[in-house]
Amino acid sequence: MHRVTKLSIRLLSDKASRFVPKDGVYPKGYIVGGIHCGIKKDGKSFDLALLHNTFGKDASAAAVFTTNKFKAAPVQVSQRIIKETKGSGINSIVVNSGNANAVTGTQGIKDANDMVIVTDSVLENKTDSTLVMSTGVIGNNLPIDEILSGIPKLALNHLGSSHQDWINCATAICTTDTFPKLVSKQFQIGDDTYTLAGLCKGAGMICPNMATLLGFFVTDAPVSPSALEQILKYSVDRSFNSITVDGDMSTNDTIVAIANGAAGGEEIDLNSSCAERYGALQHEITAFAQQLAQLVVRDGEGATKFITLKVKDALSYKDAKTIASSVANSALFKTAMYGKDANWGRILCAIGYADVENEAVVPSKTSVKFVPVDGSESLDLLINGEPEKVDEDRASEILQDEDLVIEIDLGTGGGQSADFWTCDFSHEYVTINGDYRS
Amino acid sequence: MHRVTKLSIRLLSDKASRFVPKDGVYPKGYIVGGIHCGIKKDGKSFDLALLHNTFGKDASAAAVFTTNKFKAAPVQVSQRIIKETKGSGINSIVVNSGNANAVTGTQGIKDANDMVIVTDSVLENKTDSTLVMSTGVIGNNLPIDEILSGIPKLALNHLGSSHQDWINCATAICTTDTFPKLVSKQFQIGDDTYTLAGLCKGAGMICPNMATLLGFFVTDAPVSPSALEQILKYSVDRSFNSITVDGDMSTNDTIVAIANGAAGGEEIDLNSSCAERYGALQHEITAFAQQLAQLVVRDGEGATKFITLKVKDALSYKDAKTIASSVANSALFKTAMYGKDANWGRILCAIGYADVENEAVVPSKTSVKFVPVDGSESLDLLINGEPEKVDEDRASEILQDEDLVIEIDLGTGGGQSADFWTCDFSHEYVTINGDYRS
Repeated sequence: MHRVTKLSIRLLSDKASRFVPKDGVYPKGYIVGGIHCGIKKDGKSFDLALLHNTFGKDASAAAVFTTNKFKAAPVQVSQRIIKETKGSGINSIVVNSGNANAVTGTQGIKDANDMVIVTDSVLENKTDSTLVMSTGVIGNNLPIDEILSGIPKLALNHLGSSHQDWINCATAICTTDTFPKLVSKQFQIGDDTYTLAGLCKGAGMICPNMATLLGFFVTDAPVSPSALEQILKYSVDRSFNSITVDGDMSTNDTIVAIANGAAGGEEIDLNSSCAERYGALQHEITAFAQQLAQLVVRDGEGATKFITLKVKDALSYKDAKTIASSVANSALFKTAMYGKDANWGRILCAIGYADVENEAVVPSKTSVKFVPVDGSESLDLLINGEPEKVDEDRASEILQDEDLVIEIDLGTGGGQSADFWTCDFSHEYVTINGDYRS
Repeated sequence: MHRVTKLSIRLLSDKASRFVPKDGVYPKGYIVGGIHCGIKKDGKSFDLALLHNTFGKDASAAAVFTTNKFKAAPVQVSQRIIKETKGSGINSIVVNSGNANAVTGTQGIKDANDMVIVTDSVLENKTDSTLVMSTGVIGNNLPIDEILSGIPKLALNHLGSSHQDWINCATAICTTDTFPKLVSKQFQIGDDTYTLAGLCKGAGMICPNMATLLGFFVTDAPVSPSALEQILKYSVDRSFNSITVDGDMSTNDTIVAIANGAAGGEEIDLNSSCAERYGALQHEITAFAQQLAQLVVRDGEGATKFITLKVKDALSYKDAKTIASSVANSALFKTAMYGKDANWGRILCAIGYADVENEAVVPSKTSVKFVPVDGSESLDLLINGEPEKVDEDRASEILQDEDLVIEIDLGTGGGQSADFWTCDFSHEYVTINGDYRS
């Protein structure tokens, strides 16, 4: 166990250098930043983040929220604002970390509203043009004075559009994340060049709270609120909703997309005349959201492995995703991956108890294989329900890699597929989540 | 961590002395036993078990099987026999441990059938009067010669009705269980005295396989097959299907009930004339099955805690059970319990994402408390959605106990409730399931 722990620590310290970009290309018309306002107890870590649209025109916004019935106050407030504005004229996002403002009663709602009001008043001349998010400890009221005095300070003195400003913003939404999660890219739609930038925080949960997933991505492409909403839902289904660290869904989970149109071009809407551009944007945003979501898995608590599950030839996308999710969440599978054990029995088991109709999984048509990420030959574990004689040396070799792709071919003839990303379940996970008080 | 590991080892070695009965009272008309037939590699551990009805009349049998789509060969064979016989005239159960006969193709089905045929021919003069179960490694064919020659040896020389015979039988179905699981009790229905004995194996999964739950309980009460089937389903819902160790459901899970009527009295059937006796028997069997199922949680891999979740005042039993199951399976909750952390946020979180309708959980009506098993005062964590100022010293005191009851009152006015049992998630769980090859 000592050996494994040391290895994990090495991987952990490598992660920041491997996954935090040294530079980026950022969308036009946004300023961002982060500061320490006084929530985090070390007195210095950034805990307040702002993003603001400086382009002269109102931006479009869309958001997806946790379906947990215990919705944190900022989720309730942001949901109301999105509903009332129909996603039009949302120009800022304010986020605090260190306190989730969850299960905080009426005071919590007032505090979340106040964060919106103060941000609006500093950066805008109108109300309800800001979305609010919080992450951190639950059950404690926010240190609201620090936050409300921090917002103008951050808004007036610490916002910018440099790479460092984006890094600061991404850092300020982190809790126990071991590195800030920031991605940016440029892409073409027809002759137009657009830029996307996104940041998120992942599954960190020291202190009596829970994993929270927060993310937002912004673009300078021109998109109507309704088109942005459809694209966001599609992309989140295939990215943030296709990852798991421990299967727990928090009270605060929120993903927001903002489009300000600062790069020009014709607005992308839902009408058929721009179907081609809509499709292109959806493709770009989905791939981008996947890149961002995968960073959350990379930084999964105690994670030593990054596993891609590819379910193929299912009867429907929903079946494929349900089956992938079942394997991705199996504690038995995840501990086997940690132990570098080619335990295909546990994969089959989790396929078999996935909540799908009987015809969705036919044992005699199911095949499973390991696909090494180095491009070397894949290793068949099960072909059409018949177990293969597995070369254990080869399996062990493949499992030494941090990255692994597992392909599950259901052979139903339905042709539908889904990808899902997960990490392993390690001693460190238990330590982080069980032992942190001792 | 060192401290915790030592504590766990102490608890582990205590378990056999605390949970294995020194004596028992057993139902009339059954002989049982166990031997080593040659499957387990140490050359001596028992790996073949038999139970046989010696009462002159055919017994009634009922069974519930895994809903996993990858059903092991013995599950498929036993399902066929129950279906064809309608549960009438099943007089024996044969079980091997050490090899699950799962994902073993047509050879696997032939082997499972041969186990039935040989048992029938040694103990009966008719076919399909035996149910078969297997547990252990998956993907390997059974060492069928050893098993088929072991069956007559066991049947002719090693069956009996003493306490030791029952212990031998319970021991022979174990895999990585740390103690054999056997319970017996006598009860009255009207003037009639009946006896129940049951044994099961739990979540042990060393070697490339998966947790398997096998169990059977037998009584000398007279019960029709259809009544026994209804009672079994009801009781398993509230016992074996209300426990979790890691949430994984195996290819082999099987629970069987047999009633031979050897203690006499009028047969209990589904018709209204025996409704009262039916209800009494259902009550007894359910309580008994719960006792047996709880032993599986006690012996959960790496478990250091035994947690009872009581969900009260739900709109329906199904809601109550779904919510209890959601908490019981949360890795975050289970690691917090291991860390002895009064982390009610994680409990709420798991209540909030349980798959129930919106009206089933109303945050402002939800209350959560710890109920110490020593009868001392309970500790409120949340009352009607408002977090309590938790006395951390008192919480820590309560969490020192191995046993804990957590009461979740949904306050819906529906009045329905469900109990669920789970264990914590420890370093040892990860070690057992990830590291066993190193």
